[in-house]
Amino acid sequence: MAKPASLSGFPEWLPSGRLLEQLVLDSLRRTFELHGFSSLETRAVEPLADLLRKGETSKEVYVLSRLQGQDGEDSSRKLGLHFDLTVPLARYVLENAGHLAFPYRRYQIQKVWRGERPQDGRFREFTQADIDVVGMDKLSFHHEVEVALVIADALSALPIGDFRISVNNRKICQGFYQAIGLENIDEALRVIDKLDKIGPQKVTQALIEQAGANEEQAQLALQLAAISGSESHDVRRRVNELGHTSELLEEGLAELCALLDGAKESAPGRVTAELKIARGLDYYTGSVYETTLVGHENLGSICSGGRYDSLASDGKKTYPGVGLSIGVSRLVSRLIATGAAAPSRAVPTAVLVAVNNEGERASSDAVARELRARGIPTEVAPSAAKFGKQIRYADRRQIPYVWFPGEDGGQIKDIRSGQQDAADPATWMPPAEDLWPHLS
Amino acid sequence: MAKPASLSGFPEWLPSGRLLEQLVLDSLRRTFELHGFSSLETRAVEPLADLLRKGETSKEVYVLSRLQGQDGEDSSRKLGLHFDLTVPLARYVLENAGHLAFPYRRYQIQKVWRGERPQDGRFREFTQADIDVVGMDKLSFHHEVEVALVIADALSALPIGDFRISVNNRKICQGFYQAIGLENIDEALRVIDKLDKIGPQKVTQALIEQAGANEEQAQLALQLAAISGSESHDVRRRVNELGHTSELLEEGLAELCALLDGAKESAPGRVTAELKIARGLDYYTGSVYETTLVGHENLGSICSGGRYDSLASDGKKTYPGVGLSIGVSRLVSRLIATGAAAPSRAVPTAVLVAVNNEGERASSDAVARELRARGIPTEVAPSAAKFGKQIRYADRRQIPYVWFPGEDGGQIKDIRSGQQDAADPATWMPPAEDLWPHLS
Repeated sequence: MAKPASLSGFPEWLPSGRLLEQLVLDSLRRTFELHGFSSLETRAVEPLADLLRKGETSKEVYVLSRLQGQDGEDSSRKLGLHFDLTVPLARYVLENAGHLAFPYRRYQIQKVWRGERPQDGRFREFTQADIDVVGMDKLSFHHEVEVALVIADALSALPIGDFRISVNNRKICQGFYQAIGLENIDEALRVIDKLDKIGPQKVTQALIEQAGANEEQAQLALQLAAISGSESHDVRRRVNELGHTSELLEEGLAELCALLDGAKESAPGRVTAELKIARGLDYYTGSVYETTLVGHENLGSICSGGRYDSLASDGKKTYPGVGLSIGVSRLVSRLIATGAAAPSRAVPTAVLVAVNNEGERASSDAVARELRARGIPTEVAPSAAKFGKQIRYADRRQIPYVWFPGEDGGQIKDIRSGQQDAADPATWMPPAEDLWPHLS
Repeated sequence: MAKPASLSGFPEWLPSGRLLEQLVLDSLRRTFELHGFSSLETRAVEPLADLLRKGETSKEVYVLSRLQGQDGEDSSRKLGLHFDLTVPLARYVLENAGHLAFPYRRYQIQKVWRGERPQDGRFREFTQADIDVVGMDKLSFHHEVEVALVIADALSALPIGDFRISVNNRKICQGFYQAIGLENIDEALRVIDKLDKIGPQKVTQALIEQAGANEEQAQLALQLAAISGSESHDVRRRVNELGHTSELLEEGLAELCALLDGAKESAPGRVTAELKIARGLDYYTGSVYETTLVGHENLGSICSGGRYDSLASDGKKTYPGVGLSIGVSRLVSRLIATGAAAPSRAVPTAVLVAVNNEGERASSDAVARELRARGIPTEVAPSAAKFGKQIRYADRRQIPYVWFPGEDGGQIKDIRSGQQDAADPATWMPPAEDLWPHLS
């Protein structure tokens, strides 16, 4: 076999990078579970028809076929790989509603696949970590505050530096557009969402040409989009100063202010209202969220989501929800590339037990067994080479300790400091920070 | 959307089943890491040409195509979903050999896909947990003992009851067949591997008709296959009594006996020699392993593998390895179906904080925040319903404790016993066994 080439858009990590990713995922899972979210894992495939329902993403779907499948296979039963974790969640909730307790609180950490052109931070296969709260027929607004604070907790626990969760509320935009008589609301939202990309001049032009706004409506929409801040009274005052109101606008404003007030209490400094955020997808109906890493704004949003009044419906029941999705691969690839975070060592092993000679391997195995029984990750040297070579083996893998078996247990050497002491495998413990790898 | 149908062969679990699966995977990961194995996660896809190299599995591969891909796309660059974790490992080792330390100890827990007909315990999408030790140009025999003992440790830590790891050594069969002049060794191994399925008469016939054996050779091959036992001296004696020997046979016998002796020391009662085990795949070159659950033999092997002298080769270097693969989905589906094991509760949450009225939700949130900060999984009641209803909400999810906020912290109620006490959110801790769900 010739040396294989890596596939663009399908990232894989070396052992220390994978360990970093595992520690990030462990931390996310712990936060989600501390907040009472249950894990869900869905199959990787969905019927193609369900994947294409939203329309917008059709170009990105990977379709499956069995190599030996019949040509005439029923195309209505074709399967594709999921491109997000929301379509599978909606299907799972409908399929299992009778067995779930609502509001259903789930997190889901899985690979998703999109056939789009790979770029920096944009992959064809990547890991997402989603949380959602899904109600049956109703879902209280306070969950829109809650999920933002869970994400703030989750990201605060990671070594990623400062971040900003930017929030808005669809009802504010819709209510405001209604109040000023701008009728093509969906199109106006799509245009406003491009503000950072194309700038205010082009947005004005597009609002007029595509969303049917007049000059004054376009200017007002831009003035609304320019409002930002983390103090609820300040945001409320600036929206009111624009001089247009509607019931829907007031409802959205009350919700946005409640979200800011809740965040001020639980996650000070993390959450900011940005009224230019519209999120392109037209199924959001309340709060919307985007998250950027301070200093890495060019990475784009690392965590987005919102409230949707109808995640799924079977005709009798409707399932509203609110959720956010963290782009784990995007985050981890940046952490690896910049070296901003690293595991405290590259392998799980804390102790390498040296082997005096192959005839005495069993006594090294016995020491290792004793250490493992007390929860210390241990491996035995692969060969009875000279001790210098066995120490280099440990050093190359960043294993911190080497155990030399002998009478009365033996000796333990910290190969970072060179310190060597007599030790008993029945009682010796490494310092807590050396027991398992952790993020540093 | 109509109620969606589940897909045969693509299992999904309800929250408590998924929690069981997570606890099984956590336990496997812990054992693998205690033995110094590093995690690897590979992409889900491989070039189709690499997946088909082994030939035997071609009918099972799921092939990918992009929905909007060009018809004329280069078919030599077609991708398929991996059907095991060994093909990706071989490719990853070749691709990254310069960055890996050998022997490379890796575990890999991932989904694999096979388009075969679904049956009980046989899925189209399922999770495997693999361990392998891979050397560069050489790999000492002692790793063949080691991996069997890691698996014995890993399975012993699971609530799956008794199990048997059956072992053999390819060199014994090959050496013996050479000694008795049976020339078509690969075909003879394939036939012997079917002994349990088709019985000795049909095996005799097949050895004669397909493997070119004469009557006496066929009988000798069957006599060898009938040998089993966990005492090395006993196995050695019975092989020698057949009266044929060769250098290769003696080498294999010495290895098998060393494996039995090592297992007797570290995992008494778990490992048995079964000389009928051949494993159909012709790339094994030394020890081979199969594992059955006592009382669930009809489930088939839940963990198999072996030694291969050439996992991969780039023409200059060869990478020998030894490894085993646990069929996690098969195991978990049986545990769920039989109720043989269950998580101690169905959700991560230990405490539900009740809400007195919606105006006081913030004080319930504050209690929850204090408990979480000390590592206690906590959620807040979704509505300020009557306390009886809030308690039923907890009961339905198997959340063991309900916190009633009040002056001086409030009251904590164990809803299993009905016991209620005053408590301070800054100091209260549940008993250790209630903190997180565990397997029971």
